[in-house]
Amino acid sequence: VPSALSFEDRFEIHELLHLYGHLVDSQRWEDLGLVFTPDATYDALDFDLPLTHSVAELAELWAGPQARHPLAHHATNIVVTPDDDGSVRVVSKGIGVGDGGRVGSCLYEDVAVRTDDGWRLSYRKVTLRRR
Amino acid sequence: VPSALSFEDRFEIHELLHLYGHLVDSQRWEDLGLVFTPDATYDALDFDLPLTHSVAELAELWAGPQARHPLAHHATNIVVTPDDDGSVRVVSKGIGVGDGGRVGSCLYEDVAVRTDDGWRLSYRKVTLRRR
Amino acid sequence: VPSALSFEDRFEIHELLHLYGHLVDSQRWEDLGLVFTPDATYDALDFDLPLTHSVAELAELWAGPQARHPLAHHATNIVVTPDDDGSVRVVSKGIGVGDGGRVGSCLYEDVAVRTDDGWRLSYRKVTLRRR
Repeated sequence: VPSALSFEDRFEIHELLHLYGHLVDSQRWEDLGLVFTPDATYDALDFDLPLTHSVAELAELWAGPQARHPLAHHATNIVVTPDDDGSVRVVSKGIGVGDGGRVGSCLYEDVAVRTDDGWRLSYRKVTLRRR
Repeated sequence: VPSALSFEDRFEIHELLHLYGHLVDSQRWEDLGLVFTPDATYDALDFDLPLTHSVAELAELWAGPQARHPLAHHATNIVVTPDDDGSVRVVSKGIGVGDGGRVGSCLYEDVAVRTDDGWRLSYRKVTLRRR
Repeated sequence: VPSALSFEDRFEIHELLHLYGHLVDSQRWEDLGLVFTPDATYDALDFDLPLTHSVAELAELWAGPQARHPLAHHATNIVVTPDDDGSVRVVSKGIGVGDGGRVGSCLYEDVAVRTDDGWRLSYRKVTLRRR
C-alpha cells in the first residue's frame, strides 16, 4: 500500500537515481548492480539500442561499441509514486551533456523495488525529448 | 514558526517543484492544480508574459500561442526556507532546454502553502539569468 | 559511525549543495560561510585556480579578476556517503551554463562536517568533465 513507502525510502530512491549518473559517467559497468536488480529490464529502444533483461547484458552492451554515451548524465525532477499494487514508479528527467556543450533532455520511467541490499531499479525506460 | 516545517514537508516541496517540469513538458495544463493553488499568482513578466492570478488563467495562457515553451524544464538547487510568519519561501534554479541543444538558466522564487491536498505553490516568479 | 547520519542530515547536506549555486550566481561572497567552514579547502586546480584554505581566501579569489564564473551553477546527482571514520563524503555533478547557452559538466567531491550552525563543507574539489 502507498503508506508503506516512507520518506526515507523515497529519499533513498532519489539518491539511487543520482548514483546512476556517476556510475555511467565513470564507466563503472561492474557496479551497475548497485542501481539495478540482477534481472532488470532496460529499454533504450528510443536510442536504437536493443532491450536488455539483466545487469550483465546491460553492462556488456554499454561497454561495447554500439553504445554512444554522452559526456555526462545529470538527473533532475525525480518524483516517486507508490502504486496501489505495492510497486513504486519513478519518473525523472535527465540532461545528457554532449560534445561542444550542447545537451539533450530525456525522460526516465522506472520501477523501483526494495531488496535486501536496499532499493534497486527493476525496470528503466529512457526516451529522448523531441519537438 | 520555522520548527513547524518537518523534513517530510521539505521533501514534499522538493518533489512538488520536480513535478512541475513533468506537467509543463507534457502540456498537462489540466493538472496544474497539482502544483498550484487555485488562486496562485504566476509572474513571468521577465519573459514578456502577463501576470496570471489563477490556475485557470495560467492554463489558458500556456495553452495559447503567446507562450513559447522550451523543449524541457529541469529543476535544480531547491532550497526551502520557512519564514517567521509561517509562510514558506522556496528558491530554485531551472534549466530550459531549447532547440539545438542550447539552454537557458532561470531563477524561481516561490511561496509554498500547506493545503488539504498537500503542498502547493501560491506564488511563483521566474526570471532569466543574464549577464 | 555511518548509522549516526540521519536522513535529516543527508537532506540538509543536499540543500547545502543546492544553496551553493545561489550564493555563487548572486556573487554573495560574504555569505560563503553558510556553505563552507572557516578553514575550508577549495581545490579548483583543474580550472587553473590556486588552492584556497579558508573562506576568506576563497571569497577574495572569486571576487577578483582571476575567477571566470559561468552564468549559472546547477547542482545535480548528490550522493552522501558516511565513511567508517565518521566523516561524510559527498559527490555531485554540476552544470555550468555559459554564454551562448552552452554548458560544461563538472564533478564535485566534497567532505561535509557537522558544526554548531549546521552542516558545512570543509573540503571541495571540482573537476571538469572532458573526453
